Order: sequence, then structure tokens, then C-alpha cells
Amino acid sequence: MSPIATTTTTQTATPKDKPTKAGCTPDEREETVLNTMRLLAADLCQQHNSGHPGTAMGAASIAVALYRHQMRYNPANTEWFARDRFVLSAGHASLLQYIILHLTGHAFWTLDVLKNYHGPVLHGPAAGHPEIEFPGIEVTTGPLGQGIANAVGLAMAGKQLGSLYNREGFPIIDGKVWCFTGDGCIQEGVGMEAISLAGHWGLDNLIMIYDQNNVTVDGTIDACLTDDTPAKLAAQGWHVISVGEVTNDVGRVVAALEKARGVQGKPVLVHVQTSIGAGSSKANTHLVHGSPLGVDNLAETKRALGFDSADKFVVPAQVYEYFSDVGPRGAAAESKWNDLFERYRQSYPVEYAELSRRLAGELREGWEADLPLKTELPSDIATRTASSLVIQALAPKDASWLTGPGDLASSCLVNYPGQVEFQNPITNLGDYTGRAVRWGVREHAMAAIANGIVAYHPGAFLPVISTFLMFFLYSSPANRMAALQRLRVVGLATHDSIGVGPLGPTHQPVAVAALFRAIPGMTFLRPADAEEVMGAYLVACGTSHAQRPSIISLSRNNLPLLQGTDRNKVKLGAYVVHGGDGAVVTLVSTGSEVSLAIQVADRLTGEGISTRVVSMPSQVHFDAQPEAYRRATLPTRDTLVVSIEAYVSTGWAKYAHAGAHLVGFAHAAPADLLYEYYGLGVDNLTRKIGDLYRQAKGSLPAAGEYVELLDGHVPNQYALAV
Amino acid sequence: MSPIATTTTTQTATPKDKPTKAGCTPDEREETVLNTMRLLAADLCQQHNSGHPGTAMGAASIAVALYRHQMRYNPANTEWFARDRFVLSAGHASLLQYIILHLTGHAFWTLDVLKNYHGPVLHGPAAGHPEIEFPGIEVTTGPLGQGIANAVGLAMAGKQLGSLYNREGFPIIDGKVWCFTGDGCIQEGVGMEAISLAGHWGLDNLIMIYDQNNVTVDGTIDACLTDDTPAKLAAQGWHVISVGEVTNDVGRVVAALEKARGVQGKPVLVHVQTSIGAGSSKANTHLVHGSPLGVDNLAETKRALGFDSADKFVVPAQVYEYFSDVGPRGAAAESKWNDLFERYRQSYPVEYAELSRRLAGELREGWEADLPLKTELPSDIATRTASSLVIQALAPKDASWLTGPGDLASSCLVNYPGQVEFQNPITNLGDYTGRAVRWGVREHAMAAIANGIVAYHPGAFLPVISTFLMFFLYSSPANRMAALQRLRVVGLATHDSIGVGPLGPTHQPVAVAALFRAIPGMTFLRPADAEEVMGAYLVACGTSHAQRPSIISLSRNNLPLLQGTDRNKVKLGAYVVHGGDGAVVTLVSTGSEVSLAIQVADRLTGEGISTRVVSMPSQVHFDAQPEAYRRATLPTRDTLVVSIEAYVSTGWAKYAHAGAHLVGFAHAAPADLLYEYYGLGVDNLTRKIGDLYRQAKGSLPAAGEYVELLDGHVPNQYALAV
Repeated sequence: MSPIATTTTTQTATPKDKPTKAGCTPDEREETVLNTMRLLAADLCQQHNSGHPGTAMGAASIAVALYRHQMRYNPANTEWFARDRFVLSAGHASLLQYIILHLTGHAFWTLDVLKNYHGPVLHGPAAGHPEIEFPGIEVTTGPLGQGIANAVGLAMAGKQLGSLYNREGFPIIDGKVWCFTGDGCIQEGVGMEAISLAGHWGLDNLIMIYDQNNVTVDGTIDACLTDDTPAKLAAQGWHVISVGEVTNDVGRVVAALEKARGVQGKPVLVHVQTSIGAGSSKANTHLVHGSPLGVDNLAETKRALGFDSADKFVVPAQVYEYFSDVGPRGAAAESKWNDLFERYRQSYPVEYAELSRRLAGELREGWEADLPLKTELPSDIATRTASSLVIQALAPKDASWLTGPGDLASSCLVNYPGQVEFQNPITNLGDYTGRAVRWGVREHAMAAIANGIVAYHPGAFLPVISTFLMFFLYSSPANRMAALQRLRVVGLATHDSIGVGPLGPTHQPVAVAALFRAIPGMTFLRPADAEEVMGAYLVACGTSHAQRPSIISLSRNNLPLLQGTDRNKVKLGAYVVHGGDGAVVTLVSTGSEVSLAIQVADRLTGEGISTRVVSMPSQVHFDAQPEAYRRATLPTRDTLVVSIEAYVSTGWAKYAHAGAHLVGFAHAAPADLLYEYYGLGVDNLTRKIGDLYRQAKGSLPAAGEYVELLDGHVPNQYALAV
Repeated sequence: MSPIATTTTTQTATPKDKPTKAGCTPDEREETVLNTMRLLAADLCQQHNSGHPGTAMGAASIAVALYRHQMRYNPANTEWFARDRFVLSAGHASLLQYIILHLTGHAFWTLDVLKNYHGPVLHGPAAGHPEIEFPGIEVTTGPLGQGIANAVGLAMAGKQLGSLYNREGFPIIDGKVWCFTGDGCIQEGVGMEAISLAGHWGLDNLIMIYDQNNVTVDGTIDACLTDDTPAKLAAQGWHVISVGEVTNDVGRVVAALEKARGVQGKPVLVHVQTSIGAGSSKANTHLVHGSPLGVDNLAETKRALGFDSADKFVVPAQVYEYFSDVGPRGAAAESKWNDLFERYRQSYPVEYAELSRRLAGELREGWEADLPLKTELPSDIATRTASSLVIQALAPKDASWLTGPGDLASSCLVNYPGQVEFQNPITNLGDYTGRAVRWGVREHAMAAIANGIVAYHPGAFLPVISTFLMFFLYSSPANRMAALQRLRVVGLATHDSIGVGPLGPTHQPVAVAALFRAIPGMTFLRPADAEEVMGAYLVACGTSHAQRPSIISLSRNNLPLLQGTDRNKVKLGAYVVHGGDGAVVTLVSTGSEVSLAIQVADRLTGEGISTRVVSMPSQVHFDAQPEAYRRATLPTRDTLVVSIEAYVSTGWAKYAHAGAHLVGFAHAAPADLLYEYYGLGVDNLTRKIGDLYRQAKGSLPAAGEYVELLDGHVPNQYALAV
């Protein structure tokens, strides 16, 4: 790939209150640009006495080197597919990005929009952290560390699409991914996991700039970080370019980035030092990390930099001029690419059609019909096995699918015959066309990288990540970010109960479902049998979910195929699977426990207590149904409603009068022993529920009187000493 | 510190079906020991056709080198305080530990107990992962990666106690911490974070053995991990000893560990290679990672190793003999130490008294009285500020306290005047007596290391860790392990609402409380004002909580000191703070929203709808109260009960008929704007609740009819497209 912008211009740029000096050097001109950016950052923080000026001031030269000299993009069309992508992993430095987006002519990012920063406005762009819904922002990085992983995902997506669709003479997908990280961000485990994977995969389209300013919120970095970070990354397969101090030296950064683009076979770390808060007398201290300079210091800083201390938000015309060819260059680059892509269409119609389908956010047409019919499903398989049938049926046929386990392929059953691994082509293990990903034991990075893959072009990829449900807690901060950004990532969470047996309590996800059900924007599905697994995939992959992540919770143990289950009803969230009119008791259950509930219902009915069973694969879908449907499905005024799930009861009082749930972690033992011992055996449940019904004598528990049926039975080592 | 056991004996040990060879070499003797261990592991997996034989077979030489030659411990008293501590971070290799505990004469670990491994037993020791409640197990490592951090915590605790209490000639605390990790475990971010900290702190009492067998569950490691791990750790301040292949070479491991103990100023990585499943023809493949050998392969393996294929669970007498001096040596070491400690008592009575108090699990006597009285509390402060008053009052006076922020000291307010930082003494930043910890931006390691600190000797430390509530999601897998193990770690979770303002949605913990309230064994406290903060500390630090972690959720914004709050009622979980008899509406709320609820209550009462307010700082404490108290506090049959909390409503239907909660993430904006906009303003709440009450006309919503009051109002970008 050839760089777009390495030429320099001879335009001058000086503050408006200084006469333009004829013949000013490029250095002098850049000094004005940098100081303008610094004072803009300082003013934007000062206006509401809130914000992070430090990095925006210190790292201005990096933003200029990237956006003025190195990155390929078109400010007039931030969605241009072939653009380079930039990730600000140190998201609290968002101001740096907003300012450079403004200066490079992104129409959306006016000075007025920038003034929303930390301001008393609702729905204002220019938030404290960059947010994906605004032009020019590739991903919402949020809490530290994840942006590094997001960038790895973007790079991975680019590598894969390039490998699948580029053809000789048609480098239609060859953009770089640029990531900016700092001293705080680089400490996070999720970033470290992603760094290890990027090095393993040899992603040479990824260039990460590590801005070491040696200062974090709490002071100098030597109090908590003394790693030799460049050596650490070199040991993980990264090419390291050490640049040194660049606060006022755009040229040096440009040269380093230019060198970085030429590196082949490895991701590149560009290690630079900057002076946080540069220009101010508070430079190089944590005082300027997350606090405005203060009125006096800001005025003093302006004077020192040759600006009028009475003026605010000053952008000299020369500064705009300095960036003025960014737009035309970007437009020309896009136009040239559009021509290339049109010629590609003519030369490679099949590839073009597939890529276009993906760019339109569509899965392969008719994929739903390839799911095995209920009549074709085995009568007794684990839902993880049913899931593997889906993967085997769909993943090989659609390049959108990207499947992979967190080192538990044989447990999560995400492999399929003939799969090719996504691997560094210099190994003999696979190549970049491979769509079977070996994440290793790195759950958090797996999920955060998957977010980056989707963010590359939402709808173009369907990443299916997998590990035990318990280990999804490791990845939950990234699953949450998928929900916040509405990124369709499908999580397969197997071993979803105390039925993990000998693995013991450390592997029992008794409280994890509660978290995922609570996260806004997340769909947590727990199918009761193989048929509902089909329904879970219909929901998770379907069009209505194109903007939403899902976690499909799957059993390790075999479950019978139930007569009443229906893939097309999963999207209702809950529906009657057993029994019907005239019931006086309703059991509502999920996953492994639905077949158990049916046995209990039959026993209760046999005792004269007519009982129906509702399967509730998705609470969020049920909540979205009309009230009439909800009341008819769970008629709490007319029947005793009891929830049964081998997790804690959190959230179930919303639907039921009483529940049979765990109140602690269980011991290590085979599933059947555990269910029996912890009170979830058929006999005990039948007795408990029957007793409750008989005692109620028609007077059902009121709201706020939810009954924990198994409270007394469990050896309650986790109970509170009051 | 001098090693306890580096001499070798000349006893012979051979399988019972072989004649004892006179003059057999130490190598031959050790070969028999190793093969016995391997076959024991294979038999224990084969008995129930389930288990992880691979590492137990491959790494037997490491266990022997540690437990026979290097570690200081007394099998007869696994709680001996001055022991070396061993952490099996690759917990799925638990069998290795159980077998060596058996062979070294730990009375608890009989062969019969070992046979519980993966067996159909309830409450059996010898679970699939080591569990802290059984003798000789220092910590429940659970999911991969955390054990590394736990070991760092143990080393940190040892360093600190040694620095505080050792005196010239009295090295009463100088044990080593040995950690065993493997190819899977070493990939996890939490371990990487902890490794960085251990190197930063220069913890030379920590020796980590990295057993590289190049195989994980899914195959060979080169498919997902190509780091140069020794170089990576060297770049993080570790001393690296590369040993090479040691499967059958105990002596080589012993020599390396001996060298490791002598290293000063740095933690040590001992890098060894072993052959997973050694002895079997399946060695060096993932087939032997987590599956039994199979009957035929096992028989063949026995024959190849010179054992009778018909025998099971064979431990030749010579093998027991080989380990026979471990017990006496350990007893002698303990006895010698007891003498030393007795002399210490006489020479240093003050230090002895303090240490003894801590070893007894007691905080400084009378600490509760040092909390500021309600009358001394400011009338309007953030609860994070109230928390800082507690820390300033208590932490300086009690060496049990270990406080520190995840790089957000100025936000979480955990510093106190005169604090000394826990730092490598070669820096000029602090030393190992320092009790103010600078965790950096490593939330997960912070929590997992804190677990290790507590596990060193439960009750001796009170680690107080802190970050924003949102970032506790990063640490949640370790917080969960604290709950599972009943380790008292106090988490201060600040910025606990959408009131994080300009930081925006990525920092809004709208679903995090739901998780921590759901985890069995965890106490999640959300105090309403400064007075309840005092109560939260009384609960979290108090005796009844000595075996339980807590998270105290704290506000960034000021909150009025409420007339009705009472520190001594926090332990009730919920109580009336405003209004009283004759009320027809009860508002139940927490934290920042309680003062809001009181304003709403006054308005409703003014409109003729007499309303009382319940503050509910801890759901788990409330659930533990007698039913009469619960019904009287939240009388759902007599009053309309409405919950108000600026999080999602998860869990509230258990207590209330209706609730005012968020249904999505909010935007970035100042707190007051956000509360108003998202419907949590006084006017809107008064109107909504008043309307609901009037519409109900005495017929309150039934169980299962929980009303989301704010559903319609929030711009519902996270709603489901159905």
C-alpha cells in the first residue's frame, strides 16, 4: 500500500495576532498548529471547568502526523469502506480526536459541536470518551485496554477481507489500523491478551502508537509501571520502532509512521514520548491529566505561546490552511478506489457479489432453511451439540461466519469439518482466509476483538465466540461494550449449570445469567432443547438482531427433545411448552431445567394439581411482548407461578410467586447427584410446589412475598451471619 | 533464608513387583517415584473415566522437587504460619497436588480421599480444582490466570509482614511463595497484570514455575501462543531461569529452584519443559490433557513402566520411604520456628502483640469508636468523601489495613495523610512496610491479588481496593472468587451512577449492582449518606463479615446527611428513614436516590398520599431478616411499594410493585440533567407514582405484574426490535 500523504506543503500558519512571517519554516508553521490545538483543548476544558486537557495538549503532534500526513480517509465520507481506521484506546483523550477531526474538515465536528465537551448538554456529541455513533469514530473504546483489542479486531477483519477478496491488481482492501494507547491503557490485561494475539497472527496492518508521557491520574508512572514495554511487545512478536521525544516534532512522528507502514509480517509498536500538558507550566504533571489548567494558568499559557490571552477557541486561518488539502486528497483517494472497485466488479463478479452482500449486512440468503428441522434432530442431545449442528450447517457456507473457541473447542463444539484456521500464513497452520479462530485462553480479548471485527463494517461479519458460561464473566466488560454499541457478536456459553460436575464451584455460573439479563442491549438466550437452539440462532443471527449481541447459554449434558418446543416461538421470549387450559399451577423454567419442570408438572397433575410449563428462553424478548400475551403466558392472578432454574433467583420475582433456585455455589459432583442434593430433584420439587399450592388455598403470595422454595434445604455456607 | 531440604537420601524405591535392586542410583529411585505418581494419576482418572491426567503425569518431577526437596512446610500442621506457600494456578492439574500431598504424609489426603477425584460423591475433597477449605491448599485458584495473581498477593503479604515484624536475628516471616503455571494459564490477562506488578515491586519471595508442555485442551500451543514468555517476563522485571526439559529429572528442577531461592530483588520465573502425559504412548498430545488414557492404554503404560497392569493405585513402600523424612524435617522446622517466635515474644512484646492480634483475625480494638459520629459529619458530602473520612480515621492506626486505588486515588479518595506506599525499596517511592498500594490500571489483578493477601492468613489483612463501580466489572471474576472462598476484601466502588456525567455511558454501571447482588457470599452495600457509609464499614469490616467480601458503592456527587439514617441499622439491610405509620405508599431506594425519594415522598404526602421511605443499603442483609420485619418494612399488602434506583430494575420486583429505573445506558451529561431527562426528577416521579396509586384504587399490582414506571419515557435505543 502506498501512503496517501507524505508530501509537505509550504503554506505558513501563525496565530492571527502575530504578523505572518514570510519564509517561516515548516517547523514554525507546525508549532503554530500544535499550539492552536493545545489551546483549543485547554479552552474546551476550561469552559465548563471539566475535562482531560493533558494528552490532547501533549500528543497533538501525533494527531497531526496521523491525520495530516499518514492516514488514508475522506473527511467528507467517514464511512468510505477502504479507509484507514483509527482507534483511540486511551479514550479519555477524546478531545484530541475531536480537535483533529474538526481541523481536518469533518463537517460534523464544528467548533460549536466541540464545545459540547463536558458541557451541560444532553445527547451532545463530543462526550468524555469517543462514541461510535458519531462520524469519524470507529469504535466506542470506553474503559481502558479494550481499545487495543478493538484495534486488533479491526486489523483482523481487514486482513481477512483482503485475503478473501483482493485479487492481483485489485488491492481493494488494504487499509491500515492505527491505535493510540498510553501509560494507563497499556497496563490492562485485556490489552495484553490482544497484543499477544496480534503478534501471534503477525497482523502487519496494525500500527499501535504508545504515547509514553509517564503520567497517569495519580502521578508519575514509575509508581506503578516499570515494564520495558517495547521489549515486552518485541517478545510477543511485535516490531518495535522507538522514536523518543516528539512533543513538538511532527516530522519525526511522520517518519516513524512511514517506517511502520513498511513493516511486513508483524504488528508495529511505535513508541514515542510526549510531554503531557505541553505548553503549560503544569506540563509533565498529573495535575494536567484530568483537570483544566485554571483561568490564570491558561492565560499565562496563551501568552507564553504568543496568543492573545483574552481570546478563546482561536483557530488561525493558517491552521485551517495547513490542513486544507486533507479533504481533496481524501476525496481523490476515495474516487480512485471507487474506480478500482467498479473495475473489480466487472472482473470478479462473484467475489464482488459476495462482498457486496456482506457490506449490505446480509447473511447468505436462505440460511434459515439450512437449519436442521425438528424432525431431523436427535431425541436426546446436549444443547451444545445441537449448537454444533448449526455451526456445521451454516458456517462452512457463509464467509460472514467467524467461529472459534477460547481454547475449549472440544467442549464448546464450535469446530466444523474442513475449517481453515485464521493463522499467520508463515505457519503451516492456516492463513488469513481462515474463519476458525484460535483465541487461546483469553476470554476478555476474544470478546473485545470480536467487537472490533464487527465495528469494521457492522453486518459484514458474524463472529461466534465461545467458552464456558462461567468464563464469560471474564469477557463481560467487552460483552457489555458490544451491547452498548449494538454490535452483533454471538457468544456460545456452554457448561451452563452446576452440571459442570467435577469441575466444581469455581466453574458454576450461578450468578452470571443475572448479569447478562441485566445489561441493556444484550440478549441472553437459554434454550431448553435442540429445537429451541435453532430458535436461539434465528434470533441471535437474524435481521432484527443485526444490531445486538447475544449470548446463547448451552448445556453440557443431554436434554430430551421436547414435544412442545418451537423454534419460531423463541422470539416471543416465553411460551407454553406443556399442559394448557385449566391449570392451577404454572412452572416457568429455562434451559436444562425445562425438561425437569415437565416431569414435575406431570407429577403434580397426577396429584390433581393441574400444572402447565412455560419455557422462557429470553426474558428480554418476553418483556417486549404485549401485556395481554405476558399475562396469558404467566397468569399470576389465576395460577401459582413457580420459577425453576439452577441459578440464583435474581430477577425471577418479576415473573413468579415462588422459585426453586440455588442460594449458593454447589460442590463438585456429577450433575444428577447435585440436582438431587440441592433440592432440584423431581420428588422434592413436586412436594415443595404441591405443599405451597395447598397451603396457599387460593390466596397466592402477593407482590413482594416471593418464596425461595429451596432456601432451607441447601447447606447454606454462603448465608450471612446476621 | 536457608533451604530446609537439599540433602538427598540413599534409600531405594522400586515397584513392589520388582525385586529391590541393591545400590540403585538416585535416578533409578526417582524414576520409580515419578512413575508411581503418573500411574496413580492415570488410575484416578480411569476409575470414573473422567479427569485431567496429563499435567499430573508430565510434571511429577516438579512436584517432587518442590515438596520433597525445596518447600518448607509441616505435613502435620498445614496451618503453620511460617510455611512456604504453594499455588497451583493451573488448577485443573489438581491431581498433581493431591498425589504429592498424599505421598508427603498429609494425613487428610489418604488414598481413599484421592479416590473422590471426579467421583460420584458429594462434598468430597479432591475436586477437579483445588479448594481452599481442604488442608494444604492455600487458595482456590479456579478459572485460569487468577492463581498467578493470588500468588503475587501471598508474596506481597509475606513481604509486608516480614518488613513490619522481622527484627535482627528474628526472621520470623521469610517463607517463599511457589506458583505453578502452564501454557493456558499464562495467557490470561489477569495473570499478565499481576506479573507486571510483581516485577514492579521486586517480590523476590515469589518463584513461579512455568511448565511449558506446549499442549492445551485444543492441541499444540503454537496455534495460539507464540510469545517468548521468558523474554516477556524479563522485560517486566523478572529474573528468568531457563531449565529445559525436566520430565524425568528431579535433580535439575531442584537445582533450578535452589538457584531461584537465592535471587534477590526480583521475582523469579523458572521455565521448564515437560512432556504432558509422560509415560503413556499418548504423551505430548492434547488427548491426555483432560481425558483418561483408556483401559488399554493405561494397561500398556503400566507394563512399559514395569508395573503390573492388573494392579491399581499402587504405591510401593519404597516410594513412601522416599518421602519419609519430609514429615520429621517439617516438624523440626516448625518446632525450631516456634522457639524463635517465643524468643521474639520476649524480645519484642509490642510487635508480638500486634502480630498476634492480627493472626487472631482481629482489627485494632475499639476501631468502631473512631468512626466520626453522625453529629460530626458534614451535612452535604459525597459518600466517597465520607468513605475517605473513615480511611483517614482508621487506616493510619491499624497495620491490618492495606488501602489503594486502581490509579484513581483522587477520584476514589483512598489516600490518607502520612501514608507510605508499598513499593520496591530500591526506589525512593516507598518500601515493603507501606500499606498504600498503587495498583495501576489493573482492576482484575488488584482484586485477585487482594484475595491472595487475605488467603495468606485470613483476618490478618484488611485490603481495601478501589476503583469506579463500572470498572469493578473488570475485577468481578476475582470478586466472585473472594465470595466463593469467603475472603474479606473490601471494595470501594465510587462514581456509582449515571451521575458520572461527562464520562458518558461507557462509565455508567447500570447493570453492575445486579451482578454483585446476585453473587452468593458477596455483600453489596449502597449507603444513602455519610451516616450509612459508617454503617457500611461497620458491616464490611466487622467480625460477622470476617469471612466475606463486600463492595461499598459510593457516590461521586454530594448527598445530604439524612435525618433518618442510622449506621447501626445498615446491618438490617433496609429500614424506614422517612415517614411512618399510616402511609399508603412506600418508596424503597438506595444510595444517591434515597434523598430523591424523600423529596418525592414529601410531595406525595403533600398531595394527600401519605408516603414513607425505606433505605435499602444491602439486599442480602434484608433477605436475612425475619419475615415479620421484612413485611413490616416493605408492606406490599398494605401500601403501594415503589423502588427507585438509577440502575436497571433487575431484582427489584422481589420487593416492590413498581419501580423507577433506567432501561438503557444514558448519555453523557451532568448528573442533574440526566436524572431529570431520564425521568428521575422529583416532578416526574411524583406524578408517575401518584398516578399509579390513584389508578390502582386500592387494588395493588399482583406478583408478576411489576410496573416499570419509566419505560415509556426513556429514549429507548436499547429496546428490542421485535
